[in-house]
Amino acid sequence: MATGSAKHDALEELIEALRRLPGVGVKSAQRMTYHLLQHDRPAAQALAGALTHAVQSVRHCTRCHTFTEGELCGTCADPRRDARLLAVVETPADQAALERSGSYKGLYFVLMGRLSPLDGVGTVEIGAERLLARAADGVVEEVVLATGFTAEGELTAQALAAALKARGLKVTRLARGVPAGSDLEYVDLSTIAYALHDRR
Amino acid sequence: MATGSAKHDALEELIEALRRLPGVGVKSAQRMTYHLLQHDRPAAQALAGALTHAVQSVRHCTRCHTFTEGELCGTCADPRRDARLLAVVETPADQAALERSGSYKGLYFVLMGRLSPLDGVGTVEIGAERLLARAADGVVEEVVLATGFTAEGELTAQALAAALKARGLKVTRLARGVPAGSDLEYVDLSTIAYALHDRR
Repeated sequence: MATGSAKHDALEELIEALRRLPGVGVKSAQRMTYHLLQHDRPAAQALAGALTHAVQSVRHCTRCHTFTEGELCGTCADPRRDARLLAVVETPADQAALERSGSYKGLYFVLMGRLSPLDGVGTVEIGAERLLARAADGVVEEVVLATGFTAEGELTAQALAAALKARGLKVTRLARGVPAGSDLEYVDLSTIAYALHDRR
Repeated sequence: MATGSAKHDALEELIEALRRLPGVGVKSAQRMTYHLLQHDRPAAQALAGALTHAVQSVRHCTRCHTFTEGELCGTCADPRRDARLLAVVETPADQAALERSGSYKGLYFVLMGRLSPLDGVGTVEIGAERLLARAADGVVEEVVLATGFTAEGELTAQALAAALKARGLKVTRLARGVPAGSDLEYVDLSTIAYALHDRR
């Protein structure tokens, strides 16, 4: 039936579903919908398949809580990693960034975000208890807090540092300073202040 | 198996599929992927379902070529529309914008985009032949060219106007001028020039 009221149901449904993606408003969702249906239906089918596949097969590593399709992620299952070092990051994306640097050989623990008291995100929500249990395995000697250098990332690092130190673990924090490749004149003042304070 | 090489297959597949959406780069695709899998798996499932549903059920109206789930779209099937008026737009989104204005009571023809000779998009690609056949149904008296006021939209309007006039049809173009609600001081100079030239 070509009745007016039902005419856009599948389109509206797709626009609404796309709007649930982070950073996608109604105009973007409309543009995506028209693009997919007008110019690239194979991309729409590929995306539907990839979403279904990921939801079905991606779960959390039982040791570090990052995304994995197995019981353990590739990093946790790798015997060449240094099990005495445990880096704590906010998200799998942060873990991937650290890993790409190629200069970290230890293991990871992926929090479920960072503390945000105003949004009701506390230590339970980010999985701090699970981290404390993981770090107390008797092998971990040093926990590297690699949460972000935002207000919430700092708060998270401070809270975790206190709890980890109370359990007798060595706790370190990523260094703050001038980014590689930066001219000093373009670096913000608080970064310069930290770089001066932590000079070596 | 928790081997390193296969660890991110479903994630990478999803990131690649999201990157095929217009306006989505690799960083956005990663953020969307992590958000969906970490915080909103129901949204991922809803999106997969909406994509599959839309690809299966949305097709083009046989008369005006807009998106529809039936043989004819709601507008073409509506006997209260003025069949003597035919507005030509570039996309279903433009049609929706005209329709929302509430001041057009005729029918539509939706092109497949606009002429873009440098990209190899010619009259065949935008469906001009189909428009000429549609406009020659003996009922249409006036064709309102409602392509955009961009260089390519103007080129498209000029080419179609020539072909339609050669077939004895009355051809009009949307008026150019100062947008409703605008202060003159904020309107660009070429718009003011057009508004002066077309003053009434």
